[in-house]
Amino acid sequence: MKDNNCIFCKIANGEIPSRTIYEDDAFRVILDLGPATKGHALILPKDHYEDFFALPEDTARDAISVAKKIAPKMKANLHADGFNLVQNNGETAGQTVMHFHLHLIPRYKDDGQNILWKPTEPGAEELDAVKAQIDG
Amino acid sequence: MKDNNCIFCKIANGEIPSRTIYEDDAFRVILDLGPATKGHALILPKDHYEDFFALPEDTARDAISVAKKIAPKMKANLHADGFNLVQNNGETAGQTVMHFHLHLIPRYKDDGQNILWKPTEPGAEELDAVKAQIDG
Repeated sequence: MKDNNCIFCKIANGEIPSRTIYEDDAFRVILDLGPATKGHALILPKDHYEDFFALPEDTARDAISVAKKIAPKMKANLHADGFNLVQNNGETAGQTVMHFHLHLIPRYKDDGQNILWKPTEPGAEELDAVKAQIDG
Repeated sequence: MKDNNCIFCKIANGEIPSRTIYEDDAFRVILDLGPATKGHALILPKDHYEDFFALPEDTARDAISVAKKIAPKMKANLHADGFNLVQNNGETAGQTVMHFHLHLIPRYKDDGQNILWKPTEPGAEELDAVKAQIDG
């Protein structure tokens, strides 16, 4: 179901034009207008779901099938050296539009981006406590 | 099929101990020993595939089903504010172990991590050319 106030709903459903590199009944894949790198694209479901947690499991599975279709073609045709799949949930995690989207980011040697984290060094007891907290 | 020289194969198949937060016939989810944040975990298939491109579509879909099972539990039990799913392919993209893994990264306000990119500002002609290159 579409949310009439959501810009990604409008784009996914063709009401706002986009550079579409793939489309089927349930998804549209568009070029990002502020790309990390050449070819950075977004997989958008046509129905509105705020994030990965709101997305039905079948839709999440189908989104990955779309990635399996389009990412190899992007990587080959763009001659990319690497590839990141990134999916952010919540402002704290860098989500800026509250409609689920999966970033497809081709990477190139010396592309000037660093989409990584600084590793921390927790001790064994701390890790055991985290596992216990997740296990609940 | 397992690769006897791959550390993630050994971990996924239980030959090297890990803090396992989920396991089924095809996958193991473990705590990362150098986590970005508290609870950072990795979904590992038990069979060896180098990356997303080598992963069969059904296995990719099943990996997302595992994420749909475990990520909500992690987010709730850890009281996370946000959540990143990150999957890196190739050294250029930050992949350090050449066995497919999907990072599950709970995020917290002021956690000191920045897993984002610097947006670029290509013009319309440049974006049209990128679309044409992807379309092939």
